[in-house]
Amino acid sequence: MEVRTLRELVRFDAEKKQKIPIFDSPQLYYDLYTLLPGQRQRPFAFKRSDKIVYVLEGVLRASVDGESADLAAGQALRVPAGAVNSLENAGDEPVVALVVVAPHPECAKRRKKRPDPGPGAG
Amino acid sequence: MEVRTLRELVRFDAEKKQKIPIFDSPQLYYDLYTLLPGQRQRPFAFKRSDKIVYVLEGVLRASVDGESADLAAGQALRVPAGAVNSLENAGDEPVVALVVVAPHPECAKRRKKRPDPGPGAG
Repeated sequence: MEVRTLRELVRFDAEKKQKIPIFDSPQLYYDLYTLLPGQRQRPFAFKRSDKIVYVLEGVLRASVDGESADLAAGQALRVPAGAVNSLENAGDEPVVALVVVAPHPECAKRRKKRPDPGPGAG
Repeated sequence: MEVRTLRELVRFDAEKKQKIPIFDSPQLYYDLYTLLPGQRQRPFAFKRSDKIVYVLEGVLRASVDGESADLAAGQALRVPAGAVNSLENAGDEPVVALVVVAPHPECAKRRKKRPDPGPGAG
């Protein structure tokens, strides 16, 4: 059985934010993000995948399409497919968050490759 | 922004296990499961979706294709698409778990409806 103890996977890097895969799955990303104070993930959007962030430790500043909020441990944020989001540790304590991206972006890309109805079809 | 405080959503029911949606998304299920001692989720398989269970409180007995393990708070389990799994609170304390199913089973079903190459194509 594929069981992971999350605290055994947690590691920080003074150079940059860490993205630590918990499971290897073709269906989704299921990762730990760790951010020391001041570290961030730059603005980014997944075209066809949702991203859900659940804060395990610390306070994470999240921005979605220009709005922002500080998420405490025990809070979850949904970033819908297509929304531009960024994450930042704007606090004094390390941040650990559980992040799901689904469907797996590679899988969503393959789905997009179905025949296009063409410019006259809309 | 879609932010949820998970402890505000937690509720138990003496009749049966609860499945509490955290977000409404076309891409995935992102739910809280709550189980009082003795409560369970019967064996089930998602054909094309992974299910990932992360235990927030209590000890959850999980079974996947005949193997079983007790998951403590802070542990995560991946149930790959197609595997039969069941969950049970075999302990004395309430269980709260964060459960992701992705891709959303309805979305995975639609993907399957692409034209079949037919019996001669394999």
